[in-house]
Amino acid sequence: MAAPLKNDNFLRALRREPVDHTPVWLMRQAGRYLPEYRAVRAKAGSFLAMAKNPELACEVTLQPLRRFPLDAAILFSDILTIPDAMGLGLYFAEGEGPKFERPVRDAAAIAKLGVPDMETELRYVMDAVRTIRRELDGSVPLIGFSGSPWTLACYMVQGGGSKDYATIKAMALNDPKALHALLSVNTDAVIAYLAAQRAAGAQALQVFDTWGGVLSPAMYREFSLPYLVRIARELERGEGAERTPLILFGKGNAPYLEELAASGCEGVGVDWTVTLEEAARRTGGKVALQGNLDPAMLYGSPGAIRTQAKAVLDSYAAGNGGSRDGHVFNLGHGMSPDMDPAHVAVLVDAVHAG
Amino acid sequence: MAAPLKNDNFLRALRREPVDHTPVWLMRQAGRYLPEYRAVRAKAGSFLAMAKNPELACEVTLQPLRRFPLDAAILFSDILTIPDAMGLGLYFAEGEGPKFERPVRDAAAIAKLGVPDMETELRYVMDAVRTIRRELDGSVPLIGFSGSPWTLACYMVQGGGSKDYATIKAMALNDPKALHALLSVNTDAVIAYLAAQRAAGAQALQVFDTWGGVLSPAMYREFSLPYLVRIARELERGEGAERTPLILFGKGNAPYLEELAASGCEGVGVDWTVTLEEAARRTGGKVALQGNLDPAMLYGSPGAIRTQAKAVLDSYAAGNGGSRDGHVFNLGHGMSPDMDPAHVAVLVDAVHAG
Repeated sequence: MAAPLKNDNFLRALRREPVDHTPVWLMRQAGRYLPEYRAVRAKAGSFLAMAKNPELACEVTLQPLRRFPLDAAILFSDILTIPDAMGLGLYFAEGEGPKFERPVRDAAAIAKLGVPDMETELRYVMDAVRTIRRELDGSVPLIGFSGSPWTLACYMVQGGGSKDYATIKAMALNDPKALHALLSVNTDAVIAYLAAQRAAGAQALQVFDTWGGVLSPAMYREFSLPYLVRIARELERGEGAERTPLILFGKGNAPYLEELAASGCEGVGVDWTVTLEEAARRTGGKVALQGNLDPAMLYGSPGAIRTQAKAVLDSYAAGNGGSRDGHVFNLGHGMSPDMDPAHVAVLVDAVHAG
Repeated sequence: MAAPLKNDNFLRALRREPVDHTPVWLMRQAGRYLPEYRAVRAKAGSFLAMAKNPELACEVTLQPLRRFPLDAAILFSDILTIPDAMGLGLYFAEGEGPKFERPVRDAAAIAKLGVPDMETELRYVMDAVRTIRRELDGSVPLIGFSGSPWTLACYMVQGGGSKDYATIKAMALNDPKALHALLSVNTDAVIAYLAAQRAAGAQALQVFDTWGGVLSPAMYREFSLPYLVRIARELERGEGAERTPLILFGKGNAPYLEELAASGCEGVGVDWTVTLEEAARRTGGKVALQGNLDPAMLYGSPGAIRTQAKAVLDSYAAGNGGSRDGHVFNLGHGMSPDMDPAHVAVLVDAVHAG
């Protein structure tokens, strides 16, 4: 029997129930801006060695929680574990971000892809979830996550990051059937992956659709949104107070908030290019909202950070009938290595102070 | 006396008058995807040497018009000529994009900046405009352009391109007065620069707010939009059929279309993350709209390019009461070096065929 949660504000916010304070966690809260993270990474030798070692993944997951009274932990891992387990060969070129040794470029390569076995090929992730959950000992909930089918496909087809997504967009135009086959197997894998993380102990789940916003509305509605909706509908996650909430985060997803809110997910995460006032008004209480401070605001002075945090809290309430219920505070995107941990402390305090 | 225009569809569309066909030009239509451009660049030795030589700038401006029946020419230049003339020292590091030797980082450096003299310090631009206008001989109109005050400031403060605009956003938070001083001198310079290009013969003017979309709504409305509005209001550009139209283009400007349409500009250029149907509906005929095919669609097959072009034309008409008047076809952002000139021919033909 797992320990009861001492701080369940995050889960209550996702159920749109009243909270003691607006819960806050930060995308990439475990990361290079923390000297203790850099020390573990140096010992591990590489990012991937660290992510694939459940003890080290647990250690870096917990590091920010020792410094800041964050309201949730998020599994330390990479969004590209699934294609790596599919055999694409994930590696990190120094200073260049993730790359694949064997990108998939045509229908034949896509037809060979299968859903990895979660308890063998991705066992290191499930072991990390189990270890972290045990070590958290009920202090705060643990979030599991996955990349979205479209975002995984971007890396799988491009072979790494991209400025213009030329190769995958060409595939979308010239062989949409092949791309849908890829998105379909990715969706099956994401559903199995999130279900396995839930079974291993994850108490909330987030899908990162980092690159959905590079698409035109017509292409987003063909190649990203339907697969997010399928995850929200098909991922079995319990009922009532026991339900494991699912958050759909997307950079550039502001045009689609109504559709995301109708998907069946519990929370929608948004970036900072839309006000939470507008987002709350448009989603009308159907889902919780997560976000949305521009991460660059952490370069501001402590006073500026407090002002900006308050503005995000107030914006949400303005669009939510004056109530702060249903808001999980976060950044609109991940933290950067050159950010000051002291500024994170100011931000978390400002959110909790309201 | 200048030659009368043989093809004024572009100017008529910007006045929302009936046209023979929807006019089309493409951002970065003069560029590395053309072998004849690469030949001139090799001869000139560098991008800047080419841009600063009016004869070569004229030559590369005209190159795409010899291949494709485009409805407008755009001055070949760089958006960063103004800060270069202010003394910041523009240079291009191989494969890295534009950089400044002397970025401005504080109020003291900003206080030293002044509006360059257009007919001495930026004479090479005005000479290029005069040369191109003469060589065009009335075939199509010539577009002059500038970077927006905010976009210029991004490069001036960051010292080059950026992933997160950390330095200028920190300035926005920690010393907004200094940033406003910078944006103010930039605005004065942009107005003088566009007025000088108009005097030299430019028949339409475009402001590129390439990086406005990286801001939150509150910051966009403080640091980018008011300066665009000031340009639209203060730039003297004639009346009636003789009026030189001003187009405000911005990546990520979809949330602000109503405000841009109310600025006093004649056209608003949008990227592909909003449908023209929505953009036309929201701007309600106050301005012409320019855009908005995702440039990556040029990687599609000829058939796919035709389908995509038609979808953009139809989307505009759907939001404009069934009429195609008031639409200038363009990409939502610039072309890339690896694009196929044959595909550009297909696109231009598809737009003209309707």
